[in-house]
Parts: sequence; C-alpha cells; structure tokens
Amino acid sequence: MATYNFNVEMSCSGCSNAVERALKRLGVESVECNLETQQVTVVSEHSLEEVLATIQKTGKTVSVKDQ
Amino acid sequence: MATYNFNVEMSCSGCSNAVERALKRLGVESVECNLETQQVTVVSEHSLEEVLATIQKTGKTVSVKDQ
Repeated sequence: MATYNFNVEMSCSGCSNAVERALKRLGVESVECNLETQQVTVVSEHSLEEVLATIQKTGKTVSVKDQ
Repeated sequence: MATYNFNVEMSCSGCSNAVERALKRLGVESVECNLETQQVTVVSEHSLEEVLATIQKTGKTVSVKDQ
C-alpha cells in the first residue's frame, strides 16, 4: 500500500467531489481532497501511474507532488 | 457525425472546464458546456457510449438527455 500526493486545481466542492468519486471508482483505499491547499492524498495498492491517469481523466490540471 | 446532449451537474467554471478538457482529449469535434442549464452538447464521430463513459470518468453526475 502506497501514499501518493498530488497538486490538483480544484475551485469548488463540485470539483473536489468529482475527483474523489473518480478515485473511489478506481478502487483506491482512501482519498482526501483538500480544496484549500489544492492537494489530493491517495492511499492505494494501485501504481502511481494508474492513480495519476485516473485524476487526469477528470479533466483537472494535476501534477505529482514531491513525496 | 452525431450530436449528443447530456445533463451534467457542474457548479463552477472549473467543473465545466474539466468536462470540456476531458472531451477534447477524447477527440470530439466540438463540445459546449452550459453552466447555467447544466447541459453539455457534444458533436462527435464517437459513439454515445464512448462519449458518456468519458464524461463519467470526470467524476461528474451525468445522464443522457432526450435527443
């Protein structure tokens, strides 16, 4: 199980809920979207690439944060 | 080329921009997101199923509108 941190541009709770829903559908262990810090923390058995690709498919601007 | 209409829950321009970006990445001909009416109109050679799946992957709540 790994923990990944991402910077994701989210402007409202609709944005963060969408990211959360997409990641839960992928089947990650946990996801925490912080609208204030624009940070998303994911705990998952999936690879970083899989998790990143899922966030990219939400259409949000995302980058991997230094772990 | 077909035109598809969807009802998509979008609460801010960040939401509608994300949906637009995801659909443009799929390679649709055109996409119009109306935040006020919560409507997304897509012109594309893709099937309805492909376009719908792409919107679903944004994490937004979506339904196909009667054409």
